[in-house]
Amino acid sequence: MTDTLSSDAVYTDPAGTIRALPDLEADARVRADDRSHVFHSWSAQAVIDPLPIATGEGATFWDYAGNAYLDFSSQLVNLNLGHQHPDLVAAIQRQAGRLSTVQPAMANDVRGELARRIAEVAGDGFEKVFFTNGGADANENAVRMARLVTGRRKVLSMYRSYHGNTTTAISLTGDPRRWPNEPADGSVAKFFGPYPYRSAFHSANAEEETQRALEHLEQTIVLEGASTIAAIIIETIVGTNGVLVPPPGYLVGVRELCDRYGIVYIADEVMVGFGRVGEWFAFQAFDVQPDLITFAKGVNSGYVPLGGVVISQRIASHFDTVAFPGGLTYSGHPLACAAGVATFEVFERDGILERVRDLGSRVVEPRLREMATRHPSIGDVRGLGLFWAIELVKDRDTREQLVPFNAAGADAAPMAAIAAACKRDGVWPFTHFNRVHVAPPLVISEAELTRGLDVIDRALSHADELVR
Amino acid sequence: MTDTLSSDAVYTDPAGTIRALPDLEADARVRADDRSHVFHSWSAQAVIDPLPIATGEGATFWDYAGNAYLDFSSQLVNLNLGHQHPDLVAAIQRQAGRLSTVQPAMANDVRGELARRIAEVAGDGFEKVFFTNGGADANENAVRMARLVTGRRKVLSMYRSYHGNTTTAISLTGDPRRWPNEPADGSVAKFFGPYPYRSAFHSANAEEETQRALEHLEQTIVLEGASTIAAIIIETIVGTNGVLVPPPGYLVGVRELCDRYGIVYIADEVMVGFGRVGEWFAFQAFDVQPDLITFAKGVNSGYVPLGGVVISQRIASHFDTVAFPGGLTYSGHPLACAAGVATFEVFERDGILERVRDLGSRVVEPRLREMATRHPSIGDVRGLGLFWAIELVKDRDTREQLVPFNAAGADAAPMAAIAAACKRDGVWPFTHFNRVHVAPPLVISEAELTRGLDVIDRALSHADELVR
Repeated sequence: MTDTLSSDAVYTDPAGTIRALPDLEADARVRADDRSHVFHSWSAQAVIDPLPIATGEGATFWDYAGNAYLDFSSQLVNLNLGHQHPDLVAAIQRQAGRLSTVQPAMANDVRGELARRIAEVAGDGFEKVFFTNGGADANENAVRMARLVTGRRKVLSMYRSYHGNTTTAISLTGDPRRWPNEPADGSVAKFFGPYPYRSAFHSANAEEETQRALEHLEQTIVLEGASTIAAIIIETIVGTNGVLVPPPGYLVGVRELCDRYGIVYIADEVMVGFGRVGEWFAFQAFDVQPDLITFAKGVNSGYVPLGGVVISQRIASHFDTVAFPGGLTYSGHPLACAAGVATFEVFERDGILERVRDLGSRVVEPRLREMATRHPSIGDVRGLGLFWAIELVKDRDTREQLVPFNAAGADAAPMAAIAAACKRDGVWPFTHFNRVHVAPPLVISEAELTRGLDVIDRALSHADELVR
Repeated sequence: MTDTLSSDAVYTDPAGTIRALPDLEADARVRADDRSHVFHSWSAQAVIDPLPIATGEGATFWDYAGNAYLDFSSQLVNLNLGHQHPDLVAAIQRQAGRLSTVQPAMANDVRGELARRIAEVAGDGFEKVFFTNGGADANENAVRMARLVTGRRKVLSMYRSYHGNTTTAISLTGDPRRWPNEPADGSVAKFFGPYPYRSAFHSANAEEETQRALEHLEQTIVLEGASTIAAIIIETIVGTNGVLVPPPGYLVGVRELCDRYGIVYIADEVMVGFGRVGEWFAFQAFDVQPDLITFAKGVNSGYVPLGGVVISQRIASHFDTVAFPGGLTYSGHPLACAAGVATFEVFERDGILERVRDLGSRVVEPRLREMATRHPSIGDVRGLGLFWAIELVKDRDTREQLVPFNAAGADAAPMAAIAAACKRDGVWPFTHFNRVHVAPPLVISEAELTRGLDVIDRALSHADELVR
């Protein structure tokens, strides 16, 4: 059942007028402009029907019909502090009033403060931050640094990864979004990462998966030519492509291989950094230290576009006297950085990291494991903190996926039915291929979290019907 | 002489406290964070000494020592409506309070409104807008569209151009910032554009330059293989690399060649769009219509990172039923779009386009042409609206540059002396190679404009001393 707002059913229109929901006139106007003039990401434009959103608060957003949705996707897994967090809103409003923008070649107080805070939480050895507009250009610039520091060109990345949409970033990407994008950065080679539930290495358990995945990576390094490889880039926990948590020892093994062969280790923390898994950076849960960290999304919950690269001292010092050949107009944008500084203040004051670890281990994990005992369609559940995947199958023995890899249209209908059932019940889910992810704002209340999991639980009946 | 603030010498610190300038304690603190933790664009990090900026208003900004600077570079030629424009600030504050962010797959009122307004001013045939974070990813996505629509790979771009810093964007770039960036997008080929003052074609006048530059472009098309070329991308007026205004007929000729050979014409309007030359888009001053327009900077003066691609109906419709394989988390960001909508309101209410045409033709052009008669170091002045270049030479007959192409260190000392003289006198100039550009905010007062030109006028004595 959808929550419908009553006395809370208000929103502000662009002119600043407070209006009541439902507002079907506004809905029609927003739809008309959108359909006529907005070209949407990753879509066939005539096929989609984007839902107009009126307003949001905390873990909830509302459409113009007055329907409330619990945001179990945190928009695009960026809204770590939820919709319209008052501290972030105030920080943006204050910074807009004092200095909205300044060029990168000048120095700025909030930019410097955010860089310092990020370097501090990244840990020993991390010194400087190069700010970008988002995750894609963060990865582009991290790869650029690695290539220039090593004097090598090649970069290794994983199948089942996503690293962004500009040419090198999409070339690093190991999912179908890369396929239509040619020409690619030709100096990228792919390897298989660990995925215990669907092992590429025929492993019997996590320990074997780690050992075999590392052996595979080392063979790839040797056959590509270690002396040609600048960097290995890995999403610390693979995000959109499956919430693939690395088994114990894997990332430590990657670090050792990088050290052995003089390769820069880039941790892509765009989706999992800034508290998603209960750590400032997810690699901190795996006893490992990369050379470069890329981030975006959670750094300021996407309230203002911001991304960047955290740079270890060794790499930063290379560019003390050699010019770094990269840059952008909005690098270190004050408005974006002010929202980042406010994010740190909220995280520290409200104990967000501890909260995520608690809700993840006490509420989400037990509930999902319990659901797996009841739903024959659940093949696997995995995750950390407030970042989980439910992987759906037609058959638990063969592990045949509920829908095929990269399914569309009728082939994807079972997943569409699950998503529709969730939305009908007031939860906006994140679904991808044969998975439902659980990635709500980190400020979600325990009651909301439980209610959202209840809705997903019920929606999985659509999957159970297809189990053979 | 530097303007020093007296009763106006105030700024707001990050905590919201109003403080007086000079504030050397704050200056030291901002410098310390910056030097320790901020990695700057396009720089050898130990060599630079970024100036901390306290606040700005209109065409002026202040450092913490209380020095005021007239911003003759509009930061990075993005600050079209000047520092802290009250309407843009208010729009950002209001939007932050109502809906800071929403994911691209949903519909949003200000995003739709801005897309409609941009499509309207772009003119007949333009329908939709794909929003990005800045100019680089706008160009990446425009090239992607062209490649997918034509089924061809190659893109032609100009020597002496800048198109951004991600892999395809930097590969399109025809200036030294590209050089250290390898591997490149291998499907880019370069051609020479018109540059009457330093013709690559040994032309005697502008008419001949147009004819020969078009002949050269057609030869390049034929020799690269017309059937392999997806797009030609041109900065309508080349920006950082010289304010190169195309001679009459050139862009019309480019359009004809694109039509003849089935090539998509991409106009890069990142620097010159949104009023810089007294038109919504600079191509409108040249009786020509591209197929794709890329923009950023002036769309909202860079108050919130925003860029995009304006898409003609023919190209947009290709993606009605075929998925467009590109996207980004912050596409159509509401905060950025709200500042864009406010930009339209200010432009229309305050007659910004007319203002730019008036100040450009009545104040800047006559003054620069008069300066050229007095300064033997001025080889050429050229521009349109509030976008001009003064090209400096050692010898007017041989046109030997005042400093060599891409000069650094001691070789660039004469240009550094000119810049330092401007700053001493309270003007922040845009200098590049052997040129001083004039690119102030479009809201600059006539008195400020004249005062800034006076300062540049005096500073050119440093160049005159080197004339042989």
